[in-house]
Amino acid sequence: MKKRPLVVSQRLRARDLGIRIGIYPPGKYNAITDVPGVQVGHSTIIEGEGTLQPGKGPMRTGVTAILPNNRNIFDDRVVGSGYVLNGAGEISGLTQVMEWGQIETPILLTNTMSVGTCSESLVKYMLKKYPGIGSFQDVVIPVVGECDDSWLNDSSGHHVQERHVFEALDSAATGPVAEGCVGGGTGMITCDFKGGIGTSSRRIPKEAGGYTVGVLVMSNFGVVEDLRVDGIPMGELLAATYPNEHRRKKTYGSIIAVVATDAPMSSHQVLRLCRRSALGIGRTGSIAAHGSGEIIIGFSNGNVVPRDGKHLTYRMQVMLESAIDPLYRAVIEATEEAVLNALFMADTMRGHSGHVAPGIPLDQVRTIVERVNKYGYCR
Amino acid sequence: MKKRPLVVSQRLRARDLGIRIGIYPPGKYNAITDVPGVQVGHSTIIEGEGTLQPGKGPMRTGVTAILPNNRNIFDDRVVGSGYVLNGAGEISGLTQVMEWGQIETPILLTNTMSVGTCSESLVKYMLKKYPGIGSFQDVVIPVVGECDDSWLNDSSGHHVQERHVFEALDSAATGPVAEGCVGGGTGMITCDFKGGIGTSSRRIPKEAGGYTVGVLVMSNFGVVEDLRVDGIPMGELLAATYPNEHRRKKTYGSIIAVVATDAPMSSHQVLRLCRRSALGIGRTGSIAAHGSGEIIIGFSNGNVVPRDGKHLTYRMQVMLESAIDPLYRAVIEATEEAVLNALFMADTMRGHSGHVAPGIPLDQVRTIVERVNKYGYCR
Amino acid sequence: MKKRPLVVSQRLRARDLGIRIGIYPPGKYNAITDVPGVQVGHSTIIEGEGTLQPGKGPMRTGVTAILPNNRNIFDDRVVGSGYVLNGAGEISGLTQVMEWGQIETPILLTNTMSVGTCSESLVKYMLKKYPGIGSFQDVVIPVVGECDDSWLNDSSGHHVQERHVFEALDSAATGPVAEGCVGGGTGMITCDFKGGIGTSSRRIPKEAGGYTVGVLVMSNFGVVEDLRVDGIPMGELLAATYPNEHRRKKTYGSIIAVVATDAPMSSHQVLRLCRRSALGIGRTGSIAAHGSGEIIIGFSNGNVVPRDGKHLTYRMQVMLESAIDPLYRAVIEATEEAVLNALFMADTMRGHSGHVAPGIPLDQVRTIVERVNKYGYCR
Amino acid sequence: MKKRPLVVSQRLRARDLGIRIGIYPPGKYNAITDVPGVQVGHSTIIEGEGTLQPGKGPMRTGVTAILPNNRNIFDDRVVGSGYVLNGAGEISGLTQVMEWGQIETPILLTNTMSVGTCSESLVKYMLKKYPGIGSFQDVVIPVVGECDDSWLNDSSGHHVQERHVFEALDSAATGPVAEGCVGGGTGMITCDFKGGIGTSSRRIPKEAGGYTVGVLVMSNFGVVEDLRVDGIPMGELLAATYPNEHRRKKTYGSIIAVVATDAPMSSHQVLRLCRRSALGIGRTGSIAAHGSGEIIIGFSNGNVVPRDGKHLTYRMQVMLESAIDPLYRAVIEATEEAVLNALFMADTMRGHSGHVAPGIPLDQVRTIVERVNKYGYCR
Repeated sequence: MKKRPLVVSQRLRARDLGIRIGIYPPGKYNAITDVPGVQVGHSTIIEGEGTLQPGKGPMRTGVTAILPNNRNIFDDRVVGSGYVLNGAGEISGLTQVMEWGQIETPILLTNTMSVGTCSESLVKYMLKKYPGIGSFQDVVIPVVGECDDSWLNDSSGHHVQERHVFEALDSAATGPVAEGCVGGGTGMITCDFKGGIGTSSRRIPKEAGGYTVGVLVMSNFGVVEDLRVDGIPMGELLAATYPNEHRRKKTYGSIIAVVATDAPMSSHQVLRLCRRSALGIGRTGSIAAHGSGEIIIGFSNGNVVPRDGKHLTYRMQVMLESAIDPLYRAVIEATEEAVLNALFMADTMRGHSGHVAPGIPLDQVRTIVERVNKYGYCR
Repeated sequence: MKKRPLVVSQRLRARDLGIRIGIYPPGKYNAITDVPGVQVGHSTIIEGEGTLQPGKGPMRTGVTAILPNNRNIFDDRVVGSGYVLNGAGEISGLTQVMEWGQIETPILLTNTMSVGTCSESLVKYMLKKYPGIGSFQDVVIPVVGECDDSWLNDSSGHHVQERHVFEALDSAATGPVAEGCVGGGTGMITCDFKGGIGTSSRRIPKEAGGYTVGVLVMSNFGVVEDLRVDGIPMGELLAATYPNEHRRKKTYGSIIAVVATDAPMSSHQVLRLCRRSALGIGRTGSIAAHGSGEIIIGFSNGNVVPRDGKHLTYRMQVMLESAIDPLYRAVIEATEEAVLNALFMADTMRGHSGHVAPGIPLDQVRTIVERVNKYGYCR
Repeated sequence: MKKRPLVVSQRLRARDLGIRIGIYPPGKYNAITDVPGVQVGHSTIIEGEGTLQPGKGPMRTGVTAILPNNRNIFDDRVVGSGYVLNGAGEISGLTQVMEWGQIETPILLTNTMSVGTCSESLVKYMLKKYPGIGSFQDVVIPVVGECDDSWLNDSSGHHVQERHVFEALDSAATGPVAEGCVGGGTGMITCDFKGGIGTSSRRIPKEAGGYTVGVLVMSNFGVVEDLRVDGIPMGELLAATYPNEHRRKKTYGSIIAVVATDAPMSSHQVLRLCRRSALGIGRTGSIAAHGSGEIIIGFSNGNVVPRDGKHLTYRMQVMLESAIDPLYRAVIEATEEAVLNALFMADTMRGHSGHVAPGIPLDQVRTIVERVNKYGYCR
Repeated sequence: MKKRPLVVSQRLRARDLGIRIGIYPPGKYNAITDVPGVQVGHSTIIEGEGTLQPGKGPMRTGVTAILPNNRNIFDDRVVGSGYVLNGAGEISGLTQVMEWGQIETPILLTNTMSVGTCSESLVKYMLKKYPGIGSFQDVVIPVVGECDDSWLNDSSGHHVQERHVFEALDSAATGPVAEGCVGGGTGMITCDFKGGIGTSSRRIPKEAGGYTVGVLVMSNFGVVEDLRVDGIPMGELLAATYPNEHRRKKTYGSIIAVVATDAPMSSHQVLRLCRRSALGIGRTGSIAAHGSGEIIIGFSNGNVVPRDGKHLTYRMQVMLESAIDPLYRAVIEATEEAVLNALFMADTMRGHSGHVAPGIPLDQVRTIVERVNKYGYCR
């Protein structure tokens, strides 16, 4: 396994190209890790070249792990929920998250064929880390989101192994998050360009609570014509430069978004937050195509949901509903920017059988953005 | 307007017939009012005899009001949600209750054609009682559930007036609740017998929290063959005694259930509670027929949801999910018994045009129940 | 009652300003009426000036009627469904539409306080038009969507009367649809500018079926900063020209969208179509604010759902799911453009008590759009 | 691998004990296979005795396969949907089934830890059986339901292998279905007795269409006190005979129900049918406990949903909604009886570490049923 260097000097994030999505400022790293307690780790698998040889490669895949809090997530759970914009896919474990309103494991993102391995490895990780689990006979339901990377990756080769899952989990850290062709996003494609992992965050005003909303996406949806960059029909403007014959089949697709916040929210409020994240996906151009699995999972770590306390109830601090709009605005902004970061930070990648997903041409993007701002909006 | 006497000596509640639904004990009054703070009031309209003269009568209808807490419900709201078992009907305002997870008005039950009058009268009541509403420009969304009583009542005559709504609201009290042919249930029918308002409650064990779950139904669903009384196929056993020619058309129907608890619950937990209430409806024999609107609205007054505090958040006490099963059991038991009480407490009623809904024959019911317990179950 | 002239010469639709939303061409009238069989009628109530005198005026309100097919809608029903983006409001009757997957009445749009009158008047209309209804004892559930126009209109005065409902229904016609301050949209506001009724349509390519998707909105949501016009941050660019002190309170809001198509779809497919309409609302800048009721109702008149045939089943033609994406794209485009048309076609309106909602300044909009296209996008 | 004999002479089905659930007659085999085209196969793994040795055994598990039609299910799909009564678990693939309204693979039932293996093996089976799948680059989403059998089975040993999945699929047949401790139900427990696989069917009257509804359950829920047999509180009456110390922990649980019909239904109608199946589960005593995953998946094979035809639409025959109630009644009856058959047909099983799940004592059940009918109901 050859690790991809995490910092790719020539790629830039949306903000570095002069793009400002919305009105709220991002957090320190403009990443989901700006939400206190949230950690992200990747395991990236890039190996082999040439024709697809199922079981051998080439490999263009990986795992991304999101740890919702820096506590024992099994005992000190977070409030969670989700929203299915288009269910042509699945986040394994989401049924239970939405029923119980809680998340009690890290969240993994990987390719479609590796959900099983990731689930089992995550259970092993939990048992190892929190040895009490077995003795209390509680069942751990792992949360694993997937997109299909089979256009670049030998996905039926099952190259994601237990050690990769542990690597992603063990390397999870606060601070800056590697984006683009890393972790679960290694082989993903977005609007016909190379996509992958992207993240962004927003801090809502202090008088609105000063909370942070962070979003991390594994982005693998769309066709070039649909792509919008802060409202600019970028895909349409770039389409001429992206020769049609290299595209993957249009019916592919999917995007998984992970929404995090330290704002203290109930699970129903998190559900409503996830529903707005879908509006952010829509702003980047998604039509939530029939074949595209567009699913959002969210959590608030602003409260701890104890497992089995001595008490029958626990105390929560909850946002007043009438004070919730800034969080809605924040999640839409952060989702839109996370998708852009997934695109902008992803280098051109050659996969199996000569399949190539080109990195979106940043120079052209920057030129158009600058022109629109200066001569179009006159700002 | 002639008021029906609230106590009908010859009718008996399920428990007085020796029927014990489930394992938990009821509260003091075996009524939704056993949940501290919950109040119920009725306005019953029974007037006229003979052929239906639209606009004139005969009238067999009314309004029932449920007040969720004994505070200013507009400022000190309760947590709410609901569940649509079969949406052939509507609880006006439920969309917002389910979106916001809150209830901020009393709940009214009436006939289908009187929802508009009840909604407007409820807004007037709120404005009168809480004069601040208008100045803050918040919109009040009234919650009004309905069933169709047109087989007995001149429902298109709109006989429910503002004064009836105020009467129901102003007479709301804790303590025993009148059942059967009262309030919104005056003209309702259940499993081909006379139905109406019924209520029941359960106290869960002290070690499970000692909370109370109360249910009040306006019951208007079903056909005789389906009726089950604590599992006994009572409808089938009684069917011979209930001549077919007098029945109303089978496609009629509906039931509205109001679930209340003082257990501190989140709105998502209340939703789950309401979903179990549907299982209780099912146990009485409902098949949730296509044309039957079977809708549950629920609330927990175990917390106060402040309107516009000085703070952006509020503090809730919430049930641990793992401690919630006793409440599920309680709501199933109370729903089942509330439907039975609606049936058993409802006297035979003659409506317009010679339509008659017979009260279920309690002697026969009692005989069968005793026989089954003694010789069938040997207990 | 003084009728507002339907054609306001100085207002222009989005397309007349050089705005092209998306890639598909609109139908002949760029209106929901491009869907064969769909008819629209308005009743507009503009009367009185000066201070609010509840019950007297001033009146700035009305009713809009959408007739889903040109058959007997009660007997020859259309397939319907809906989607609640944010349920701070209600479409009366939607619970049943979503449960049954059918629409069997015209759809009315009006102000919040007039839902009751509209519902009852619609029942009268149905009984009058289809006399058989009563005798078959089927209950008609009217479908009435609402937004709050109380900032301009004496909404508590209940000025919408039965005759207005009949006027809207009886005047319904195919062909061009009046937009802006007409019908239910008369007193509505959008992104701090005058809003109201807007409509648009799309024809999908012949090889995709050649079907039409039409959308009509009653638009009353948002704040100026959020407004996007085909991706251009128009609200932000215009904000300086719209003095803050005249705005209505931000917590107001709502939008009702009616989606129509002749593509033969199942009710579940219509639900999915409505979910995409929400993405179109999002593209105009909506964050689906907590207090904003954003609800979509949709129908396909590509099949007739018979009421009570001699047969137990009926035959439908249904879109292959894999062929459905063009309809998704179309509904997003048409929804976005319908909102813009509601804004662009609405003149400045003075309501009660000196409240004024300014028409969006079309010259400025046009200037910005042209500049962005020419100098920004270089197209 | 030692195969359990499929016919266990001493166990009897509910009907053989004189229990008649509901009013409709069962199909020929009183099984889901009475729905024309539906096939069922099992692979049963019973091996080893003694203390749990993870990875080695003892094994008490298996796979059950339900084939929805006797066509190429990938190209000639069936209409599908589902309902989550309580989402403490998951049917893998259900998100897509509910989004698309279609089922395009067989349905597998197994233990929680074997979902991954079953999913992958099912994909291999599909690729092998329908070689075109890969070349069209469509992704197959397998449907796999699970319950937790770890109280009897070495579930973390992953003893379900690809060959077992193929065995279940290849042995699938019409006709009688083995019940009790077979296939996925081998290690399951219901209401503290041995449970497993059960099935039942109903034929609705010819004048209602003459269709068949079949249900197959993998039943693993509940505690003894809750068990109801056709309304009789059987669990309570039997509780004394079932010593407490041998019970598994109460928080275990789950039930997966598979609903099938040849009635031509839309996916939304199948969803409504599945919601009624939940009422049938409730009638057997389930409270849909917090920790119990109670999930229903359903399909109608009354139409073929073509994959990629030359046409953009396809023709369906669909039930008139007003004719649907007999199907609702049928699914409630069949679900209730399927659970009873799962219980009654399951022999006592000794699992690992001395854990024993006793078969429900049929003599006692029969005695009580006869007594209740004869002396209680006097019929």
